[in-house]
Amino acid sequence: MIAIAVESDGSQIQAITARAGVFNKEEVECVREIWEEYCSVGAKGCGYTFIVAREGSQVLGFACYGPRDLTEGVFDLYWIAVDPDTRRGGVGRGLLTASEEAVQRAGGRMLVAETSGTPLYAATRAFYVGMGYTAEAVIKDFYSLGDDLVIYVKRFG
Amino acid sequence: MIAIAVESDGSQIQAITARAGVFNKEEVECVREIWEEYCSVGAKGCGYTFIVAREGSQVLGFACYGPRDLTEGVFDLYWIAVDPDTRRGGVGRGLLTASEEAVQRAGGRMLVAETSGTPLYAATRAFYVGMGYTAEAVIKDFYSLGDDLVIYVKRFG
Repeated sequence: MIAIAVESDGSQIQAITARAGVFNKEEVECVREIWEEYCSVGAKGCGYTFIVAREGSQVLGFACYGPRDLTEGVFDLYWIAVDPDTRRGGVGRGLLTASEEAVQRAGGRMLVAETSGTPLYAATRAFYVGMGYTAEAVIKDFYSLGDDLVIYVKRFG
Repeated sequence: MIAIAVESDGSQIQAITARAGVFNKEEVECVREIWEEYCSVGAKGCGYTFIVAREGSQVLGFACYGPRDLTEGVFDLYWIAVDPDTRRGGVGRGLLTASEEAVQRAGGRMLVAETSGTPLYAATRAFYVGMGYTAEAVIKDFYSLGDDLVIYVKRFG
């Protein structure tokens, strides 16, 4: 079941981020910071919405998206992560589809997912392509030397 | 003379943004918001540094830059604007050069300037190209339908 994340999901979201295997310390810390902002001021106040895939009381994965400032109808997929123990069960696809539907309901024209060009993110990039995203831009050596930024875009309607 | 902006520069910075002729209401408001954050918590706290070109007590133009989260050595040029009455005097070039020098002193490897692909921004794009920037990416219809995002990059060292 996919639902808007609530405060009690926080510890499981943090644990999944840490265990996902693709996020460095600074990125794990960044998820924690925006989660705290989301809990304290809400999605409207901070611009981030967190959704979770839940099975009973267990969080299997989460996604976080929000509108890009100064654009008409562009949304960013800031984070998406699935518990490594529950991958290949369609949890990621379900979370991304739910994000896309929410973005479209909010009047979004496109969803942008920025990711890394390194081998560590090969499965992530294949996931976006499989979900209908196009790599529309690459900035070489962006995150660090040898670590490109790849901008995936899915356009709606 | 180019210097770090101080609180008393605020009203002239706002006036230049409004009179520059290329920023919409939402963008003018965005400059005001980050300026207020800069004044209240400082450049280190908010991640934005404002610099001004000054002649006596008059502000001729300003620029605003800061490090991009989750990257090693990428800085964004968030805003650059020159008083329309004082253009063609090299004020913009001076501000951008000073920004680049500050970025390099801070260990920056590249400065990224995102701008619009519309005719209104033709002079801005020519300015970046003249300053040694390369349009490394374009996302069609980004700001709105017909208004592309163009990502200019200058790499140092």
